[in-house]
Amino acid sequence: MKNIQLWGESLRLLVELGATAAFALSGVLEAARKRMDAVGVCAIGFLAAFGGGTLRDLLLDQRPFFWVRHVEVLWGVLALCVLAMLFLRRRHFDLTERAIQWPDALGLGLFAATGVDQALQLQMPAVVAVLMGVITGVFGGVLRDIMCNQIPSAFKDHRPYAVCAFAGGWVYIGLLQIAAPEWLALLASVSVTAGLRAMAIWRNLELPAWRV
Amino acid sequence: MKNIQLWGESLRLLVELGATAAFALSGVLEAARKRMDAVGVCAIGFLAAFGGGTLRDLLLDQRPFFWVRHVEVLWGVLALCVLAMLFLRRRHFDLTERAIQWPDALGLGLFAATGVDQALQLQMPAVVAVLMGVITGVFGGVLRDIMCNQIPSAFKDHRPYAVCAFAGGWVYIGLLQIAAPEWLALLASVSVTAGLRAMAIWRNLELPAWRV
Amino acid sequence: MKNIQLWGESLRLLVELGATAAFALSGVLEAARKRMDAVGVCAIGFLAAFGGGTLRDLLLDQRPFFWVRHVEVLWGVLALCVLAMLFLRRRHFDLTERAIQWPDALGLGLFAATGVDQALQLQMPAVVAVLMGVITGVFGGVLRDIMCNQIPSAFKDHRPYAVCAFAGGWVYIGLLQIAAPEWLALLASVSVTAGLRAMAIWRNLELPAWRV
Repeated sequence: MKNIQLWGESLRLLVELGATAAFALSGVLEAARKRMDAVGVCAIGFLAAFGGGTLRDLLLDQRPFFWVRHVEVLWGVLALCVLAMLFLRRRHFDLTERAIQWPDALGLGLFAATGVDQALQLQMPAVVAVLMGVITGVFGGVLRDIMCNQIPSAFKDHRPYAVCAFAGGWVYIGLLQIAAPEWLALLASVSVTAGLRAMAIWRNLELPAWRV
Repeated sequence: MKNIQLWGESLRLLVELGATAAFALSGVLEAARKRMDAVGVCAIGFLAAFGGGTLRDLLLDQRPFFWVRHVEVLWGVLALCVLAMLFLRRRHFDLTERAIQWPDALGLGLFAATGVDQALQLQMPAVVAVLMGVITGVFGGVLRDIMCNQIPSAFKDHRPYAVCAFAGGWVYIGLLQIAAPEWLALLASVSVTAGLRAMAIWRNLELPAWRV
Repeated sequence: MKNIQLWGESLRLLVELGATAAFALSGVLEAARKRMDAVGVCAIGFLAAFGGGTLRDLLLDQRPFFWVRHVEVLWGVLALCVLAMLFLRRRHFDLTERAIQWPDALGLGLFAATGVDQALQLQMPAVVAVLMGVITGVFGGVLRDIMCNQIPSAFKDHRPYAVCAFAGGWVYIGLLQIAAPEWLALLASVSVTAGLRAMAIWRNLELPAWRV
């Protein structure tokens, strides 16, 4: 049993680090597309990686932030930005973007579920908790796009992203409601979010658009 | 007397709900113009409706937010966004925008006055309190425009909007200074803000521009 | 000794006020370029002057803000905005921008050092403290550019700005580490930041760009 828990913890850490790297890389690529300088590349990388969780903590009035408790991830993202600038060339961008979709989908699920969990622990109402989960997963990308002077792709590209986190958040809350153990709720929530996202990518699903 | 108070409360609630709907709709319309998807329409609707008050509470370090205390307004705005997507067509946009100007003007007055009041209760200096009132009324629209990738219309369209709230805020503070009862200060402040705004719309008043 | 301290305090105040004016003016000029109205000019002026410090205080959960403790600077910046609108014409813009580079460089140094200091007093790790210093110095301009609907020039123009504050921040921390007196650390940090920035302007230094 202890062994399984250890495996679980390690797996979770792995997903977390992979997703943070994917989020940061999405910022780095966007900054490179906009021909930003080294400062801009790092700033957008940081924002994309930590923006969502930081905004959630600001709204929930939680301190210290994740990146204050674990400064090593700050150094990690900085290293990632520098390495990307050194080795990544424009011809690698498309491939990189396709590759990071998968850790990104897993991260969306994990970050949304942890956001919901944190809000629930502060006695937030269910709908607010789900909203916090969605913000955690989505607003890194939103802040990235705002800084890059474009409409957030989460609001515009008609590919389900935030709604996957929304669905996964309700799964988490529903399972806790029927007294499921926390690890099961987490696992189910991440599976639903990441699964829906994967299906959206794979099947090219589209959100309903405004009928003009 | 009790009866009048009850009437006052109901009227206030009515103005509050009408104004929140007007703010949300302004976001929905802007998002639709930018051809956002369903997620974007709802996100911009939420931001326009709750952004100003939430920013004020962040700056004043007040929790819980309005929409955490009253989650039913979250559901209400969500319903409004969905209904708008189902029934509102492009040919209705101009009419809708003209119609929401009036609840919007009343809401600007009410939200500015309550922002001032909240800041005063926290012993803020008068000018900071007025600033908080203006932020409450104006920054929902500012955040909406930032997300829609345009310069905030409150900063650019040369129609008095923030200055009306600024004037109304000082009226509120002035009346409290001479020991007027709170309901009178509120009523006068809302009247001044909404009245100035209505005159600006009606008479096509313009703010001074930069003389190049 | 007392005398020297008094001189130091006065000098510091002078740099602080000059830099705040320079930051505000940079916002005013940008708003004028975008043909904003009087409200926009003042709003962008305020944001450019106080945005960095306010964001740092939000992140560090510090209240009251600088402009709440010293409301006279709010009035000062407001007066500056009005005066600029009355007397500054487009033909003066280039000259003004060249002139404010120098108080801006000094202010970058001073604000970054005080940001680092404030974070250290809250027991933040060194790298977080330096980040807070950089945010204090740089994010007023970033918020200004976001509101003006353009990519932040601090991220795009390839002129060292944030990196100067980054270097100066580490100087501050390094000197405190070897138990140097606080005034010396402050002086050295400001000198390094402002000196690097001045050299960057003078020598037209460029940050490394992405090699496509």
